[in-house]
Amino acid sequence: MDALKFELLHRDPGTKARRGRITTPHGTIETPVFMPVGTQATVKAMKPEDVEKCGAEIILGNTYHLYLRPGEDIVREAGGLHKFMNWHRPILTDSGGFQVFSLGKFRKITEEGARFKSYIDGSTHMMTPETSIDIQNALGADIIMAFDECVEYPAEKPYVARSLERTTRWLKRCKDHHQNTEKQALFGIMQGGMYKDLRRISAEEIVEMDLPGYAIGGLSVGEPKDLMLDVLDDCVDYLPQDKPRYLMGVGTVDYLFEGVERGVDMFDCVLPTRLARHGVAMTSHGNINIKNAANARDFSTLDPECNCYVCRNYSKAYLRHLYKSDEILSAMLLSEHNIYFLVHMMAGIRKAIEEDRFPEYKKEFYSKYGEF
Amino acid sequence: MDALKFELLHRDPGTKARRGRITTPHGTIETPVFMPVGTQATVKAMKPEDVEKCGAEIILGNTYHLYLRPGEDIVREAGGLHKFMNWHRPILTDSGGFQVFSLGKFRKITEEGARFKSYIDGSTHMMTPETSIDIQNALGADIIMAFDECVEYPAEKPYVARSLERTTRWLKRCKDHHQNTEKQALFGIMQGGMYKDLRRISAEEIVEMDLPGYAIGGLSVGEPKDLMLDVLDDCVDYLPQDKPRYLMGVGTVDYLFEGVERGVDMFDCVLPTRLARHGVAMTSHGNINIKNAANARDFSTLDPECNCYVCRNYSKAYLRHLYKSDEILSAMLLSEHNIYFLVHMMAGIRKAIEEDRFPEYKKEFYSKYGEF
Repeated sequence: MDALKFELLHRDPGTKARRGRITTPHGTIETPVFMPVGTQATVKAMKPEDVEKCGAEIILGNTYHLYLRPGEDIVREAGGLHKFMNWHRPILTDSGGFQVFSLGKFRKITEEGARFKSYIDGSTHMMTPETSIDIQNALGADIIMAFDECVEYPAEKPYVARSLERTTRWLKRCKDHHQNTEKQALFGIMQGGMYKDLRRISAEEIVEMDLPGYAIGGLSVGEPKDLMLDVLDDCVDYLPQDKPRYLMGVGTVDYLFEGVERGVDMFDCVLPTRLARHGVAMTSHGNINIKNAANARDFSTLDPECNCYVCRNYSKAYLRHLYKSDEILSAMLLSEHNIYFLVHMMAGIRKAIEEDRFPEYKKEFYSKYGEF
Repeated sequence: MDALKFELLHRDPGTKARRGRITTPHGTIETPVFMPVGTQATVKAMKPEDVEKCGAEIILGNTYHLYLRPGEDIVREAGGLHKFMNWHRPILTDSGGFQVFSLGKFRKITEEGARFKSYIDGSTHMMTPETSIDIQNALGADIIMAFDECVEYPAEKPYVARSLERTTRWLKRCKDHHQNTEKQALFGIMQGGMYKDLRRISAEEIVEMDLPGYAIGGLSVGEPKDLMLDVLDDCVDYLPQDKPRYLMGVGTVDYLFEGVERGVDMFDCVLPTRLARHGVAMTSHGNINIKNAANARDFSTLDPECNCYVCRNYSKAYLRHLYKSDEILSAMLLSEHNIYFLVHMMAGIRKAIEEDRFPEYKKEFYSKYGEF
């Protein structure tokens, strides 16, 4: 049996937006979906039961972080990542590639893989396609990702071309090494920077391998928004209709809408929980900086259209007090609100696609949300 | 109608331990009780609904902190402290005296009150019996405390004598100034340091004022345990049987048992949540320092006898990982466990008193808990 099944339920008549369903060993995921990130085996400042209450159907774990601490052997001995962190719905793990390549001068890339220094104790480590898959097999996520190089922006075309060819060879090694195909679905990752012809080559090579799903990597890495959307628009066309498409690392309201409009099914980002820890609430009327003096005596809730635990029980004045007082509950409540907000925004998007009114829904949402 | 009713339900035949019930406008409190502390309108790192799920029936708020931030006027405008912080069971506020007098050279005591500098912005403030009561009336707790001087240890007898006389005069001013006697019960505080004759004088003077309850202040301020217990033993005898007795700032397992044995009904302490933030779990087999290497591969729960959310779902290995990774969830889970542990320890104590086996229960608990 395959580890993953994807059903394309409906397509928007006017855009490339699509409504789908992914089935994994730990449950189903309605798409388009936003996936909260649980870097170190926890969605920061949230109990897993509260992540679930927010409606999240899948979360991410980070291979790089969990490899360094606590170590994948401990997670395996604990019975896998689901049991270790008490999250019983689907999990996706990244390959560790993105974090390793972000290390700049603290890493060296060869054909074999990437050598890097641990940020925890300075020790030297080697991550290869095979070790990344070994670690991800130990963690036991429902969806695992190929080890790839995410090229920075801007980058010269010859380097991007060489890099994507290596990423393709690495994907082949990942696929050959993957041991647990019945319970874990391996996704390939398209690269190619901002060069559409390279994106097409990358797509053709990875689609050739007939994987359960495909990710678009190397976008939203600092390039202008227009360029990003233009490249994304093409990228999606190179991918098959019958497999889920995952745009990595994207989580702002506008990029989620624009990604859905271009046919993306899955998104992840640390943004909602990171903004929360910095006192920013995402709402249907735009972002609110809770520490603003205007909130000191504002006894209304964050978002009159939100029905989350936070908006049912707390005022902006209280949330501002918590933030100003450095109270942990501030990060807890704002994280819960922001995750609920994005998860329910995606639910609204799914409903709009089902009802053939995605473009109208987007327009309404944007007009309320205000400037991006 | 009185703001507070106290029923003495049962007395242990062999000790001074007693089983009682306090009724307030926001609900009943079974005694002896441990009261978690919510200094800045939050029990640190816990949602109020989780504090409630732990079984806590009353929490504390700090007048000093809430006066400085957000300011009692904002709490009043929010509808009072219960509504502001979304806690709908009873609340007790201290008078601010303890915090002000802890400021050392940053405060000056006169007959009028105490002048001090804010730790937030360095501004100068005056706290008097009248302002303390005004603030507490604005916060709206079910039980409010008299403004007193908590004398440090050691202290010369003449100073302690003069201080307690002033504290008595301040109590009279508190009582005269208290505006909301139907909804808020004012407790007097006994002082007198380690001098039993002064304790007796203090007790006689405050009991004369016929208040709804009495606290024992100025103990557990650095004196040896034997001395503390000896003085406490006498203090309780000076207080009436038909009023609740509150030993302020005490929350270690042994002091809770020793206090109950000597006839105390109410306790509060920041210890369980503070220990939690430092990675220490309180369990029936003694305290566990979660960061110890021995816990790295220990997939058992914190306490096999505990049925809290944390012990039902998480291993020591996971909790250690969270603590080592500086994750907020570490403080969240350990705080919830520690609060549950102390609240349920008190429930066990109450049951033992009802069944006339408090001394046996104490002995069993101590033998399992180990060294203090």
